[in-house]
Amino acid sequence: MKLIDNAPDHIKAISPYQPGKPIGELAREMGLSERDIVKLASNENPLGMSVRARDAALAALADIERYPDGNGFELKAQLCNRFGIRPEQIVLGNGSNDVLELAARAFLGAGRSAVFSEFAFAVYPLATIGVGSRCIQVPAKDFGHDLDAMAAAVEKDTRVMFIANPNNPTGTFMRGERIKGLLERVPGDVLVVLDEAYTEYLSLDQRYDSLAWLDQHPNLLVSRTFSKAYGLAGLRVGYGVGNPAVIDLMNRVRQPFNVSSVALAAAAAALQDEEFLARSAEINRRGMSQITEALAQLGLQWIPSAGNFVTFKVGDGAAVNAALLRRGVIVRPIAGYGMPEWLRVSIGLPEENARFISALREALGQS
Amino acid sequence: MKLIDNAPDHIKAISPYQPGKPIGELAREMGLSERDIVKLASNENPLGMSVRARDAALAALADIERYPDGNGFELKAQLCNRFGIRPEQIVLGNGSNDVLELAARAFLGAGRSAVFSEFAFAVYPLATIGVGSRCIQVPAKDFGHDLDAMAAAVEKDTRVMFIANPNNPTGTFMRGERIKGLLERVPGDVLVVLDEAYTEYLSLDQRYDSLAWLDQHPNLLVSRTFSKAYGLAGLRVGYGVGNPAVIDLMNRVRQPFNVSSVALAAAAAALQDEEFLARSAEINRRGMSQITEALAQLGLQWIPSAGNFVTFKVGDGAAVNAALLRRGVIVRPIAGYGMPEWLRVSIGLPEENARFISALREALGQS
Repeated sequence: MKLIDNAPDHIKAISPYQPGKPIGELAREMGLSERDIVKLASNENPLGMSVRARDAALAALADIERYPDGNGFELKAQLCNRFGIRPEQIVLGNGSNDVLELAARAFLGAGRSAVFSEFAFAVYPLATIGVGSRCIQVPAKDFGHDLDAMAAAVEKDTRVMFIANPNNPTGTFMRGERIKGLLERVPGDVLVVLDEAYTEYLSLDQRYDSLAWLDQHPNLLVSRTFSKAYGLAGLRVGYGVGNPAVIDLMNRVRQPFNVSSVALAAAAAALQDEEFLARSAEINRRGMSQITEALAQLGLQWIPSAGNFVTFKVGDGAAVNAALLRRGVIVRPIAGYGMPEWLRVSIGLPEENARFISALREALGQS
Repeated sequence: MKLIDNAPDHIKAISPYQPGKPIGELAREMGLSERDIVKLASNENPLGMSVRARDAALAALADIERYPDGNGFELKAQLCNRFGIRPEQIVLGNGSNDVLELAARAFLGAGRSAVFSEFAFAVYPLATIGVGSRCIQVPAKDFGHDLDAMAAAVEKDTRVMFIANPNNPTGTFMRGERIKGLLERVPGDVLVVLDEAYTEYLSLDQRYDSLAWLDQHPNLLVSRTFSKAYGLAGLRVGYGVGNPAVIDLMNRVRQPFNVSSVALAAAAAALQDEEFLARSAEINRRGMSQITEALAQLGLQWIPSAGNFVTFKVGDGAAVNAALLRRGVIVRPIAGYGMPEWLRVSIGLPEENARFISALREALGQS
């Protein structure tokens, strides 16, 4: 069809994102009951959402015929209150995926390039290619970002650098001072998008305050999400914090009502429930031990992870994944990231982790 | 800042969409109670949402820590069932705004142009400019689309034509056979995006079946929303129906989880509640009479509307709007559409319409 032939080449070149298999889909395919399936594939919070967030979501449903507040007044007020920032420093997204894409749309385009690391989040190349820009992928170092190489990889037409800390799907972590050091070296006309989707899972000694760097580095954009530790993946809400001039440009390409009223209300309430966040981090810490101890017993290599998931080496990832699926356990194959020998598992509740461990043992023929 | 100076010119040229004033904002500004404010500004359904949709939304909240089904299996199944189409003909959007933008992103770009009418929906130029394309705006005829002029306006680099039927903000309507006639004349490499956001409000004799034209016209994309008659504006969900090859390209630029699980569930249930839809159309029909009769009594001109809103001429739109706001009534000024002498009012419940009418009478000094 001429219409399709004439579509922009960079659009025709995109291969769509491969999401984790939904529980319903596996149930249909395998003839299993949804209740018997354990899904540890998308780094979701096994505790669900905070009760305060749920109450706020329910209340928001009462007015659902109304358009959401396109400015997100209440959620921005809560973010300001929590992090000591100003509303004009915030852009809200339909998940942090939207924030990453708004950055690409506002600062990239034909004749421009973005720098990111090998084994980094799949949305970086998708967002870059989607606006007709060139991807500069920098080889990873020990599965993590090689910041020196990334700084050196910046070219004249580079306008965005994506950094994930912790990184997904490898879980690698860099100390705050190393990222601060990178910011000192990157040219001021490169927007450094620091993707902190998993930051709430960092241990106390790993924590750092990237928002404090904004005054000195107006080319920094910090991206965060409510989909992970806050347990709101199904509602789609994330945020970016940056210089007001950067935020202003991103707001111009933002869809006016990109975040639903239910998401706005639930996120504002979730921010106020620090106890839920602490409990989520604690159950993750214990589950991480449970799973990595089992991986050690099975003699498997894994990458030390600062997130709520861990990536481990099984040799034939596709075969082991298929064996796990037959046992009703969904993890994430990451061949699409260039790691066909590895699988990624999200940390679940103790009993979910146990189901995964026993299915993995069987799949490897060690039962 | 060099980063901002170096951003693409077409991004810096965008002026953001002006949404209707949220009730909370007016309440804060005027020191009014939210309960005393009548909002007839955003063409929302005054009946709220269907009870079946509400039940489905509540049920979806139970699993909200999970990512939505990125393929929208259940909602697509319901759409197929309702309209006799196939899943590969459907793209789901975060509101139909997202569908319009996906069309622009997949088929437009630098060196391309889009054709649309004067006084048409504000998102058409936003989506066009946002991807660096040129806008070809065709003068309206009696506030509606001039289809002959639009067909003649197509240039060599034109890849998208946006048509709204009924049109927003003017409410004008074109019979189906006229649009079919346009499709016969537009080159096959121009995607004709037929925006039917208000189609559920058409009277029986106005109805037409645009989906039946898809076989013959693979360059047609029909866009619809759950934000208007279905009463789900706050949840953000719409859909596009087109040729599978067109849909495939749009899905490549779509964010993998662009529609929330609550929206997917509520929309699937809403589709099955035809009684609610009929009741919504009926209350709209009566409200339209109530308001247009009052406009006639006030000696005001209005544009006959096939939607759930009506646009009327007051002379100084800004002044009358301010006077209405002081009386706690929010309508939509449309100076941004080049109609500074006009205001648009959404059809509400009988008592809301009465509040609007009496506030308007006072505002015009006719009380």
